[in-house]
Amino acid sequence: MSETLSAESALARDGAARIEWVRRHSPVLDGYVRDAVNDGALRGTRIAVVVHLEAKTAFLATVLADAGAEVIAAGSNPRTTDASVVAALRERGMTVVADAGGDYGSWERELRAAADCEPDYIIDDGAELTMRTAEHRPDVFARLKGVSEETTTGTARLQAMSAAGRLPFPALTANDARCKHLFDNRYATGQTTLQAILRLTNRQIAGARVAVVGYGYVGKGLALYAKALGARTFVTEVDPVRALEAHTDGHTVGARRDVFPQAQIIITATGGMRAIGAADLPHLAHDVILANAGHHDLEVDTEALAAAAASAAESRPGITSYRIGERDLHVLAGGALVNIAGGSGHPVEVMDLTFAVQGLGVHHLASTSLDPGVHILPKALDDSIAAAKLASYGIRLDELRTDQLDDHTARMAGTADGGSPA
Amino acid sequence: MSETLSAESALARDGAARIEWVRRHSPVLDGYVRDAVNDGALRGTRIAVVVHLEAKTAFLATVLADAGAEVIAAGSNPRTTDASVVAALRERGMTVVADAGGDYGSWERELRAAADCEPDYIIDDGAELTMRTAEHRPDVFARLKGVSEETTTGTARLQAMSAAGRLPFPALTANDARCKHLFDNRYATGQTTLQAILRLTNRQIAGARVAVVGYGYVGKGLALYAKALGARTFVTEVDPVRALEAHTDGHTVGARRDVFPQAQIIITATGGMRAIGAADLPHLAHDVILANAGHHDLEVDTEALAAAAASAAESRPGITSYRIGERDLHVLAGGALVNIAGGSGHPVEVMDLTFAVQGLGVHHLASTSLDPGVHILPKALDDSIAAAKLASYGIRLDELRTDQLDDHTARMAGTADGGSPA
Amino acid sequence: MSETLSAESALARDGAARIEWVRRHSPVLDGYVRDAVNDGALRGTRIAVVVHLEAKTAFLATVLADAGAEVIAAGSNPRTTDASVVAALRERGMTVVADAGGDYGSWERELRAAADCEPDYIIDDGAELTMRTAEHRPDVFARLKGVSEETTTGTARLQAMSAAGRLPFPALTANDARCKHLFDNRYATGQTTLQAILRLTNRQIAGARVAVVGYGYVGKGLALYAKALGARTFVTEVDPVRALEAHTDGHTVGARRDVFPQAQIIITATGGMRAIGAADLPHLAHDVILANAGHHDLEVDTEALAAAAASAAESRPGITSYRIGERDLHVLAGGALVNIAGGSGHPVEVMDLTFAVQGLGVHHLASTSLDPGVHILPKALDDSIAAAKLASYGIRLDELRTDQLDDHTARMAGTADGGSPA
Amino acid sequence: MSETLSAESALARDGAARIEWVRRHSPVLDGYVRDAVNDGALRGTRIAVVVHLEAKTAFLATVLADAGAEVIAAGSNPRTTDASVVAALRERGMTVVADAGGDYGSWERELRAAADCEPDYIIDDGAELTMRTAEHRPDVFARLKGVSEETTTGTARLQAMSAAGRLPFPALTANDARCKHLFDNRYATGQTTLQAILRLTNRQIAGARVAVVGYGYVGKGLALYAKALGARTFVTEVDPVRALEAHTDGHTVGARRDVFPQAQIIITATGGMRAIGAADLPHLAHDVILANAGHHDLEVDTEALAAAAASAAESRPGITSYRIGERDLHVLAGGALVNIAGGSGHPVEVMDLTFAVQGLGVHHLASTSLDPGVHILPKALDDSIAAAKLASYGIRLDELRTDQLDDHTARMAGTADGGSPA
Repeated sequence: MSETLSAESALARDGAARIEWVRRHSPVLDGYVRDAVNDGALRGTRIAVVVHLEAKTAFLATVLADAGAEVIAAGSNPRTTDASVVAALRERGMTVVADAGGDYGSWERELRAAADCEPDYIIDDGAELTMRTAEHRPDVFARLKGVSEETTTGTARLQAMSAAGRLPFPALTANDARCKHLFDNRYATGQTTLQAILRLTNRQIAGARVAVVGYGYVGKGLALYAKALGARTFVTEVDPVRALEAHTDGHTVGARRDVFPQAQIIITATGGMRAIGAADLPHLAHDVILANAGHHDLEVDTEALAAAAASAAESRPGITSYRIGERDLHVLAGGALVNIAGGSGHPVEVMDLTFAVQGLGVHHLASTSLDPGVHILPKALDDSIAAAKLASYGIRLDELRTDQLDDHTARMAGTADGGSPA
Repeated sequence: MSETLSAESALARDGAARIEWVRRHSPVLDGYVRDAVNDGALRGTRIAVVVHLEAKTAFLATVLADAGAEVIAAGSNPRTTDASVVAALRERGMTVVADAGGDYGSWERELRAAADCEPDYIIDDGAELTMRTAEHRPDVFARLKGVSEETTTGTARLQAMSAAGRLPFPALTANDARCKHLFDNRYATGQTTLQAILRLTNRQIAGARVAVVGYGYVGKGLALYAKALGARTFVTEVDPVRALEAHTDGHTVGARRDVFPQAQIIITATGGMRAIGAADLPHLAHDVILANAGHHDLEVDTEALAAAAASAAESRPGITSYRIGERDLHVLAGGALVNIAGGSGHPVEVMDLTFAVQGLGVHHLASTSLDPGVHILPKALDDSIAAAKLASYGIRLDELRTDQLDDHTARMAGTADGGSPA
Repeated sequence: MSETLSAESALARDGAARIEWVRRHSPVLDGYVRDAVNDGALRGTRIAVVVHLEAKTAFLATVLADAGAEVIAAGSNPRTTDASVVAALRERGMTVVADAGGDYGSWERELRAAADCEPDYIIDDGAELTMRTAEHRPDVFARLKGVSEETTTGTARLQAMSAAGRLPFPALTANDARCKHLFDNRYATGQTTLQAILRLTNRQIAGARVAVVGYGYVGKGLALYAKALGARTFVTEVDPVRALEAHTDGHTVGARRDVFPQAQIIITATGGMRAIGAADLPHLAHDVILANAGHHDLEVDTEALAAAAASAAESRPGITSYRIGERDLHVLAGGALVNIAGGSGHPVEVMDLTFAVQGLGVHHLASTSLDPGVHILPKALDDSIAAAKLASYGIRLDELRTDQLDDHTARMAGTADGGSPA
Repeated sequence: MSETLSAESALARDGAARIEWVRRHSPVLDGYVRDAVNDGALRGTRIAVVVHLEAKTAFLATVLADAGAEVIAAGSNPRTTDASVVAALRERGMTVVADAGGDYGSWERELRAAADCEPDYIIDDGAELTMRTAEHRPDVFARLKGVSEETTTGTARLQAMSAAGRLPFPALTANDARCKHLFDNRYATGQTTLQAILRLTNRQIAGARVAVVGYGYVGKGLALYAKALGARTFVTEVDPVRALEAHTDGHTVGARRDVFPQAQIIITATGGMRAIGAADLPHLAHDVILANAGHHDLEVDTEALAAAAASAAESRPGITSYRIGERDLHVLAGGALVNIAGGSGHPVEVMDLTFAVQGLGVHHLASTSLDPGVHILPKALDDSIAAAKLASYGIRLDELRTDQLDDHTARMAGTADGGSPA
């Protein structure tokens, strides 16, 4: 039994080291945010943190706990929970309703268990816990004081609830903070998705034909980095202005049926469903790699692939190869977010920003009396995060002087006192 | 006298060739826009076009005239009027109140002459004619039916007028159209500003230390292209989120006093005034090149330079060198927009978009009854321009299918019928 | 016991799948080279293949075995042997003198065992087996028919032996083939080294200050890709022309004492020793990451670090953190080649080229009678590899027509018949 | 008459200002080279400088004259002579056998006049004066003490002469100096060729499909910069390894008939003839731009175009448009080097390197007794130029320490004393 204990304790030590590595590279969370949220507003509140449960999330949970909150840590995906981190958080006395190695069934149970903990606030990812609380524990849902939501998808869900008159508390859309989507969606997803694809496949990016589905911030980051590494890049996108932007950024743009037959690697980044579905299968080239960087496990429609395939097999760890006619189509990480399921998620530096948005967001919810509905983080808070990050790098900024403003603008406004010219 | 005539006629032939070159590369203006504005709405209206008067502007004027408008062409800057284009437009019977080789004095007179033509609509640049009409011809100002404004600066001026209750007609801010600022400000200014700087100085960009002041769309384009060509790039910016974006884009970020001493080339792109002013002079390195890509001739404060300098001389055509102490500071194109005063302005392909916004904008003003105040171009029109451009390239797009939308979002909204879960 | 057998057999199945994945993406080896070496020249020869023993190497070994050679597979580094691949090769009846999980001691024994197999030819990496054969089995060394060497370092060693009159057989320097160093050293090392660094550290590359030590092909690839991903790049290099090239490529260049204090990540790529040594320690910044992409485990002088450090600990898997005064210095993969020890080595597509050079090289040694000494692969063979690769992509090339040659050059040569003009 | 004089003198003042601008940005020529060549070796020698006669060339001529040489300045192309620079050099008393505004006929006469000046040394471009001296003045040719040649093309011509036994003096191939081709061919031609194309056409590079013919250093620079600016790049190349390099650099590679139909801009960079010739015309797209960045006016075969065209006209200054069937093909600068004929040639910083090679080259010829034949500049001199350039930027370099050399290499060589292991 002491052996078991010491295995658990070794695991916890491992997790603690990982969390410490995160702290080391999270100057905003560990400095500015830690100070800001430590004013008593969070003391005694109960906060459910529902994000991929690994070291970066654990550090956010720690900062909130250090500010006096009772933190319930859950995972936002059954495959991304890190056992060492769970052990470390439990050793620190935190409530953790997640276990590594689970499946969608156990994850559903964990989310319900999180709702049963009766949180006041939720830091959510895809509104997963918010939706389940509404269904499983309408009483807890009715008493919720606020939600801070991470993703575009989750925001759409919350807005739908609000439009339908079903959101009785304020929700902050972290994704709309500039300090989140400008950095997390674009640079972080771009870097780590390509890393994961290249690691899983042992392929070369230079010279490869890479197609990106969707040219929002995520797609932009993916295409930018793929091109920078020497890929020949293709973009397919339904919004014509974004499509023209992709064209002007040097990518080859077209409809899916024009782009897919040329692609050796296709990455989905639409935030919707069936970005690659049954209708697209005839257009895919032999030996194409399919990977998902959007929100849903459903962007690559693996059910459609399975239905069409004569066989499916694991070619390499993390690669499922479907045989359709004479072609092999290779899906990475089962269609899950490849940078998380097939890698270790976003870089620490970026999550320092994203989690600063979440930490300040939940503190803002607890410190003010926002009306029910969907809100964005105040610009001043958003700006303050960037300023803290820059300061941590030793970067100084100027302030705008009034004599640098356009004087015609001032004159046009000012002469109003003198009467209308008309 | 026949000699003079034939010189004039040779000039007009030259101008006509330049306009034809523009037409050849303006598929949106020459196709989609030409068709759209030709429905009678512009017939008999009087439109003043106040943009740098060269071949691209002339083609816009032609399209409007072909749609039945009476066009008055003026210049938006005394130095950028092309004599051959003026001759060609006059030969086509258009009213042109601009002449090449003028100065700020003659330009003021020309703008007043344009106001005296009593336009119904103005396609303006920096609100220059709008402001002067308000002051010089309040009667005409009062009868104005609408303005379509090109720039950020002009928009700020119109908004100041509107806020002061001094805007009795609707104004469209072309700059806010995605088909304008995403392409014109970023890619076009970036490309042509660097072209002009390198041409005027005969310098190498690779390895050079280039600083950009302001990281809006113009600054982003400048820094992107400079870095792409091998420059080591510096950015100074007062907005912390933009500054952090610049950092993450790989530029070295800092306050002006940190960045300027390292720069060999400094380009202003703030849209304000005194981006480089008296206070900055001590921080500038010997032999630095100063160029302006923002709106105002006043971003590089040449008066402050002249006041501080022991002498000033033209080192090469387009380069004024100020001697300050032991240092030489070189200002390009007298601080005017370097890509226009020291080059030939934006690429045809981009002005095809920008002028499509202007052309559809004035047609929209003439076809609808907008309230007085500042408006943006309807998204559908904005999108239609990008779609026409893509079609001209032979690029097809998909349409979003409803089964590609997130079904949770649909469910969240839909269950509202079933009553609140609380 | 049947359980052990089936574990072994599962392992072999796994290895076979990995080798099949390689075959799938190795059109040159699996097509052109396979055909070329299958002419009987290798039948009955004994070839020792001493390269990192994972799936790509295994496929080369398979191609040679299929051509009739008796292949002895050894590893070129104790840490990079893949157990599943060893199992698969053994199941195919190949002699494998390597085991996963060994150390430098066992590796030495394995190399001596490889020498004891009395090979005719060696495909070597760093001349490791060649040197050991000279020392351990001079009799076998004397009978060696040829060596094909992979690296710059190994080539230098062979040239030193040749210059000293100690090379009694022909050696081919695969590294000098354009199809090797232009692709393997530059693109492959660049891509996979950054991948490994980012994976091990969970850090962001955009905005980071990355220094590269040495600006040969390896350093060029590293700096190129780091910059492309948004890093601010620094280069230190002793050759002034290469240093000026780095400057013109947009990197910040300087002596080690100028560059190191600014770097957050330092990557060594010199091919020599002590690229970061005792003398450099005072110049390293707190929290710097040190990684090696050159040949030697000795480029990062971990002994010097250990001697200077108050303590050393594993911060994350693959990261050893040395505490020196108030600073933490983090060494990746113990200073071994980070892309191999901390990743899965070069991309398949690139090894398809490199191993084509090796496969054709050993076949060339077996088919011709080269003099003892160091040789390069004939240009025609080198070219034929690139041509085969392009053909596998469906890319066609033109041939130069004689009427495209400069006619003055022809005239200058031709008129020689007419006598000297002097 | 005084008016004429003063016009000439104003012109000379203008030229002097241009030369001073060059001096200001030529730290190597104005410092290290000036000192090195000023040891008396050039005193009294007669040097013909045959390079595009504008300010940068004039500054080289000045440095040589200041070292005591009698300099004869000629142009290497009839269209690139700058009248103001000619005036300035004449005012300084230099022999100038070139005039602005000439044609190929006058240029031939000027080169013969240069030969008649009986130079001891020629700094040549394309071996143009060397060839003409051989034909026009064999007596002078026989007494020539040396030639320093700028280009690949000229080097090929000199090597042909040497191989034919027709080169009675030593020739240095400046182009083979790393300080020349690594910088001049690649970065300088890349930058200035694109600048010139964009200026002449007023087109946008972002999103454009640009094809480069030939992937030597010139083609590499062109494709690199075009891609960096957002072009989609195509390369056609006869050498398979270079073609594969282009592919891996992210360009789309193919035969001319595959690449040309997709290109909107085609740039030739082969150093040969008829890179675009009669056989290619059927493959060119309507409205394609053809520009030349190689050596010969003959890379774009304008005769073939004229023969096939129904008409030809000037669409814009510097653009000749050929009508062939339903297509218009636009040739820039008549097929001459577009960066020189349509721009102002290479950046000052790069010519500081190239002319340092030429200046040190002619000094090396005058200081040593090289055998007749084609030589390259000694590596030490080549390196010293880069070192001087870096020093002018304030960049320091380390020197390689002996303990940084691979000790196995040392051991392999050293043990030779112990006898052969065989």
